[in-house]
Amino acid sequence: MEGKTKIVEDFGDYVILNFKDDITAGDGEKHNVLEGKGAICAEITAISMKYLNSRGIYTQFLDFITPNKIKAVSLKMLPLEVVVRLKKAGSFIRRYGGNEGEEFKEPLVEFFIKDDERHDPMVCKNHLVLFEICNEKQAEEIEKSAKKTAIELKNFFEKLGFDLWDMKFEYGIDNEGKVCLGDEISPDTLRLRKKDGIFDKDVYRKYLGDPLEKYREVLSACRSLNLL
Amino acid sequence: MEGKTKIVEDFGDYVILNFKDDITAGDGEKHNVLEGKGAICAEITAISMKYLNSRGIYTQFLDFITPNKIKAVSLKMLPLEVVVRLKKAGSFIRRYGGNEGEEFKEPLVEFFIKDDERHDPMVCKNHLVLFEICNEKQAEEIEKSAKKTAIELKNFFEKLGFDLWDMKFEYGIDNEGKVCLGDEISPDTLRLRKKDGIFDKDVYRKYLGDPLEKYREVLSACRSLNLL
Repeated sequence: MEGKTKIVEDFGDYVILNFKDDITAGDGEKHNVLEGKGAICAEITAISMKYLNSRGIYTQFLDFITPNKIKAVSLKMLPLEVVVRLKKAGSFIRRYGGNEGEEFKEPLVEFFIKDDERHDPMVCKNHLVLFEICNEKQAEEIEKSAKKTAIELKNFFEKLGFDLWDMKFEYGIDNEGKVCLGDEISPDTLRLRKKDGIFDKDVYRKYLGDPLEKYREVLSACRSLNLL
Repeated sequence: MEGKTKIVEDFGDYVILNFKDDITAGDGEKHNVLEGKGAICAEITAISMKYLNSRGIYTQFLDFITPNKIKAVSLKMLPLEVVVRLKKAGSFIRRYGGNEGEEFKEPLVEFFIKDDERHDPMVCKNHLVLFEICNEKQAEEIEKSAKKTAIELKNFFEKLGFDLWDMKFEYGIDNEGKVCLGDEISPDTLRLRKKDGIFDKDVYRKYLGDPLEKYREVLSACRSLNLL
């Protein structure tokens, strides 16, 4: 199965996530190929998911296969983007106003249905259940897990000198019916900031220079932890 | 205090809701004055809220003052539109697709912040709490009450020959901190259908003829119950 930025090869017991060099924005309207991007995002995903596993969070990650693949738990992915916001940015401000970087009193979890044609509309938990995307218990579990994961990742990146503003998670259900954090954790799916710069896909969205230069800085910081 | 379609006069212990002849749509962009509309909507509100009170639902209604006023409980209104959907229509279809009139398996409650400038963005319960619009307990109470009220109103209008598709409620907090259904229940705030026609503000929104002709039919059906 091939998505916008990944190929998923199914080996029954496990899957191989093959990270492509493609980068997209605006519901796929903007698209480029940046040589080496797949390898960078795969390795950042591997390091951060391995860290999360060690912190008791169930992620899809099993093994990193250099340069750009991950061996991962086989999941039935939900057609859902789960956003956790620690500081205001992006679509939150477009919807509700406020200023970039304003901190929330506590993490805000938002759900969006993956639907490029309808621009990934926001949904609440009762929509998820009504649309049969997941059941109520799974929706509660995802929300709770997403909040916990957000705080772990905030601490993880804080140690590396980055300020984590928000993040997009995707969840799947494993063979035993358990909710599992899947997909990717990388500058494509995080807003990572420093006082003097932007280290995430906004560099690409807003034409702020070479995204990979920034992505490489994030990878190099992650590597310094020697987790793989 | 004067809103788009009502003037609220505060008498301390109670308020008088003065229904105006104004009708608006599209976040106030479309606006007309239809002589007699205020009286029609006030009386439909009075009859349906009196019915709801008799069914154990706490509404703002105290007394009808002919032709176009209601004596009502003094409330601190929440800046919130609470929509309950029984069949698909309007903004639901624009957001998620589907066909007009498709029935939901169970009532769907949606929350929207009153903000014309931002086109009343949808929010979930966690936004309500984070934005300090209400607390978590009140949000739960509003959702539960809205669902129950929707089913009561569906039955009420069914007896009168109308099919209730969806409705918009507004809630306030009374002096004792209790959640109370306020504002208005009328063809301005309900989608009321028959096989052969539309009896709600969509007549105005979509230029389908004289709205008041339809509104008067709804009032005349409500009057047949002799509730006032």
